[in-house]
Amino acid sequence: MIYITRRERFNAAHRLFREDFSDEMNEEVFGKCSNPNWHGHNYELFVTLKGEINPETGFLINLKQLSNLIQREIISKIDHKNINLEVDFMQNKLASTENLAVSIWEVLEPYVKQLGSDLHCVKVTESENNFVEYCGN
Amino acid sequence: MIYITRRERFNAAHRLFREDFSDEMNEEVFGKCSNPNWHGHNYELFVTLKGEINPETGFLINLKQLSNLIQREIISKIDHKNINLEVDFMQNKLASTENLAVSIWEVLEPYVKQLGSDLHCVKVTESENNFVEYCGN
Amino acid sequence: MIYITRRERFNAAHRLFREDFSDEMNEEVFGKCSNPNWHGHNYELFVTLKGEINPETGFLINLKQLSNLIQREIISKIDHKNINLEVDFMQNKLASTENLAVSIWEVLEPYVKQLGSDLHCVKVTESENNFVEYCGN
Amino acid sequence: MIYITRRERFNAAHRLFREDFSDEMNEEVFGKCSNPNWHGHNYELFVTLKGEINPETGFLINLKQLSNLIQREIISKIDHKNINLEVDFMQNKLASTENLAVSIWEVLEPYVKQLGSDLHCVKVTESENNFVEYCGN
Amino acid sequence: MIYITRRERFNAAHRLFREDFSDEMNEEVFGKCSNPNWHGHNYELFVTLKGEINPETGFLINLKQLSNLIQREIISKIDHKNINLEVDFMQNKLASTENLAVSIWEVLEPYVKQLGSDLHCVKVTESENNFVEYCGN
Amino acid sequence: MIYITRRERFNAAHRLFREDFSDEMNEEVFGKCSNPNWHGHNYELFVTLKGEINPETGFLINLKQLSNLIQREIISKIDHKNINLEVDFMQNKLASTENLAVSIWEVLEPYVKQLGSDLHCVKVTESENNFVEYCGN
Repeated sequence: MIYITRRERFNAAHRLFREDFSDEMNEEVFGKCSNPNWHGHNYELFVTLKGEINPETGFLINLKQLSNLIQREIISKIDHKNINLEVDFMQNKLASTENLAVSIWEVLEPYVKQLGSDLHCVKVTESENNFVEYCGN
Repeated sequence: MIYITRRERFNAAHRLFREDFSDEMNEEVFGKCSNPNWHGHNYELFVTLKGEINPETGFLINLKQLSNLIQREIISKIDHKNINLEVDFMQNKLASTENLAVSIWEVLEPYVKQLGSDLHCVKVTESENNFVEYCGN
Repeated sequence: MIYITRRERFNAAHRLFREDFSDEMNEEVFGKCSNPNWHGHNYELFVTLKGEINPETGFLINLKQLSNLIQREIISKIDHKNINLEVDFMQNKLASTENLAVSIWEVLEPYVKQLGSDLHCVKVTESENNFVEYCGN
Repeated sequence: MIYITRRERFNAAHRLFREDFSDEMNEEVFGKCSNPNWHGHNYELFVTLKGEINPETGFLINLKQLSNLIQREIISKIDHKNINLEVDFMQNKLASTENLAVSIWEVLEPYVKQLGSDLHCVKVTESENNFVEYCGN
Repeated sequence: MIYITRRERFNAAHRLFREDFSDEMNEEVFGKCSNPNWHGHNYELFVTLKGEINPETGFLINLKQLSNLIQREIISKIDHKNINLEVDFMQNKLASTENLAVSIWEVLEPYVKQLGSDLHCVKVTESENNFVEYCGN
Repeated sequence: MIYITRRERFNAAHRLFREDFSDEMNEEVFGKCSNPNWHGHNYELFVTLKGEINPETGFLINLKQLSNLIQREIISKIDHKNINLEVDFMQNKLASTENLAVSIWEVLEPYVKQLGSDLHCVKVTESENNFVEYCGN
């Protein structure tokens, strides 16, 4: 069993809030992250696959394929976008880093299977001080 | 002459666009950065002062004072904000990294003078691949 | 199950030595780290919690709470301090990175429980080339 | 159980290809990494050991010993070398990052045992966007 | 006057040597960098332009244009290549980081002029410990 | 004219204080950096030389020589040391980053001349947020 990780990056706007909360309640629960005018981040996304090395290629997976997959299914849909308003896989979810990691896992997992590999973990860093990892149920 | 630099960070949303441009024209000139629903960044701000070492303290300046100044005049006004909509020193300006660097210089320069020092350069990094420096006229 | 990590930083002096060793023996076992006049580091501390996402907030935990906890119980007691002489949770322990990681775990673990979460791992980096992780017994 | 990691670095040339493939086939499978004139990387190697803290020293292991071991058995043999042509532990293997990680594990594992410790993981980063981890069978 | 910098990256093999030196002499002058079987690096290239902000766009230059230029004239010719054997702008030059920086300047300078801007500096990092800057004559 | 930079690192303890100040006065002027029990840092030192490329070697200077010089004259005297008590070139000086940068310049400048090159700048980083540059009078 070996693990391979590809990093991709995206810049996006978001806001942490609940529509059923008052502005004051949102401010209390989510602090400055609930700013109604949005704020944003340079996110880093680390996608880790696990599996056996293919003796024909020396690869667990061709990273170009993995990079293309992440670009097509995630980055093209979230980069330079508003996570709350425009990202299909985040609709009706709180735009937290935790939910981002889980949602990206759910998008990628079947595609990684199609590539003949297994998704091991998705890591999303929101800043140099904060990151979230999700490794499935 | 010695140079001392303090780094501070802020996260913000922005959009590159002109009101007098059509959506198509904004898209053509500013690309995905013109997304009407905003996007955002983790910005890094490097403020460099120049001067002589004070023989009483071994300091060019007390960095705590410099950090407090940058926090009060810049970070508290831009962190977790929308640069186009909410930041007073960016009003009526295109929200480019270039204009950010110049505007931060203009805000800080008189305060640095009051601290008895000289502002040398302001550097703003928008991503790990892009940054702007402004060192005055 | 999801994992969230907060990074905090501290600068401290320390010395690796045993009182029951001669200076020569300390030098032999601990090398230049046994310098009787101390040396120091910029330490990075990564605290990882695990748990379920709270559907009300999208959070595993409010990172502001976690940051406040680490600041109050760890950083305020060790930052700009001498680990051997001044840090209560390191008394009567060799000031190694290993012992730092375990001791920080032991301090934080009950408080994290009180926040309704579980401590997963404590990582302490001493330099860009060395780090220690402790994930409990 | 505690984990300690040492980072070492090496610069090397390599090429991904199979002798039984035509140039076109190599290009198709390995892309620009199959360039017959070689290319190269600044690799980072992270070696993680696990074990109990020695109460005499506060150490899992003396990192100087671990660093010396990695230098002697790995870095001196691969740094500023051609991985395909000159590195004994990579002979007759595809020079992929996956195979590097496994081979470095196989070289180090018995020596780490001799030091009275256990090898936990070997991580090899090929670029800021790609890395591989191998933690044994 | 404002400065804007774009970072691009390339991986390449090289060797430091002179054909008119014996192997021993090359080893003496260039050390392990003269290995006849090549070694390689992950190079980082920072290209800095200077100029005035265009009031129409808020830009010194559209970074997409600058990135495209660097990709077309430099990265496509040197990435995953052998600097000594395959890179036209390094022919008949010692493949040192110094010569790389000067040669990249010479390639880019007229194109930057065509974009209506001025090249200020080219910085090439060969490792985390070594870099070279060239800012013209 | 070209610029080449070598990074070296050292870990050291220090304290900011004046013997002619009371403890309260030291605390007021130097804050937590005046802790009588010391604290410490992982310092990074960047030494930049300027000159012409030697056409015989493609080098401004052999970086191995520069690294050896910095190791011999600076790192061996300050690494794992107490800057206030043990570092000859910091005797009778306030142990500020500013004074470190100037003192390292003064030590290195004549040796760099002997190597046939010119010292351009010395940069000392004390933390990821603070650094000082000195480029001579």
